[in-house]
Amino acid sequence: MQPSQATPTPPTINPKLIVPFVNSVRNVFATMVGVSTTMDRPRIKTDRAPAYDVSGIIGFSGDVIGTVVVSFQKCAAAKLVEAFAGMAVDPDSPDFADAVGELANMIAGGAKQHLGNAADISIPSVVIGQGHVITRPSDVPCVVIPCKTEVGDFAVEVSVKQLQTAGT
Amino acid sequence: MQPSQATPTPPTINPKLIVPFVNSVRNVFATMVGVSTTMDRPRIKTDRAPAYDVSGIIGFSGDVIGTVVVSFQKCAAAKLVEAFAGMAVDPDSPDFADAVGELANMIAGGAKQHLGNAADISIPSVVIGQGHVITRPSDVPCVVIPCKTEVGDFAVEVSVKQLQTAGT
Repeated sequence: MQPSQATPTPPTINPKLIVPFVNSVRNVFATMVGVSTTMDRPRIKTDRAPAYDVSGIIGFSGDVIGTVVVSFQKCAAAKLVEAFAGMAVDPDSPDFADAVGELANMIAGGAKQHLGNAADISIPSVVIGQGHVITRPSDVPCVVIPCKTEVGDFAVEVSVKQLQTAGT
Repeated sequence: MQPSQATPTPPTINPKLIVPFVNSVRNVFATMVGVSTTMDRPRIKTDRAPAYDVSGIIGFSGDVIGTVVVSFQKCAAAKLVEAFAGMAVDPDSPDFADAVGELANMIAGGAKQHLGNAADISIPSVVIGQGHVITRPSDVPCVVIPCKTEVGDFAVEVSVKQLQTAGT
């Protein structure tokens, strides 16, 4: 087995692309879910570690292209969806996936406002399955924002890049 | 346990949104992969059946919003990526996920041309994991196009809707 080649210039974190997501996560969870979050320092994800058990995926297109994944521990997802919806939601019901997707949508939507007027976001997909791995194209760096709440952990994985436009 | 309520008006398939994907799948696999595909009749997906083992997800935004998932049996993915890349690709390498994402990207991109000028597609996410379930918002019907090749099966799941614009 040959070791895989090391990347000569490791990608760096562009705060202009990440801070809007950090702020949006804090805002959405404080105002819409009513659960306070603490965040660890964002870091570049270099491995193919599995996501948590329940992931909402939003695609970006337009001036900012890429994807954002909000991935929850299963127990955290259940508690956070309950806090968001105001009642317990059966994890096997469509309402549960809709709620997870809506959380991802609000986080992406909140960040989008600070990322440029011509960024569009897709409707969310939600992946459910223990140990699933979500990859993105290898030419777009992935920044993980690890998040903790009193009911469990989740992570926001941001893989977006800004297209060069006039005036940028 | 109460049975879930039946939907009063089941969604119907809009050929204007689905035919571009059928044609694009056929075109991409014939020209870029060199493997012919046969397709079963598209059908509305009403259950939460798991996707296959390897799925590429593309988000649509703009005039057409939604997501498209191209989901492969693991063995089919390996063979089709090999045919596409012209050599065997380690399923654990970033190149494998990139190739699956690129197949999804070409299918979505080919369909996009016939869906309206102002439709944008996101870069692909690829989900790897046996038995993962991908859900979409429950208000957007999902149409499954079952596809067979000589090396295995895959499915294209189209969950898009066209926004009403002037002249539509």
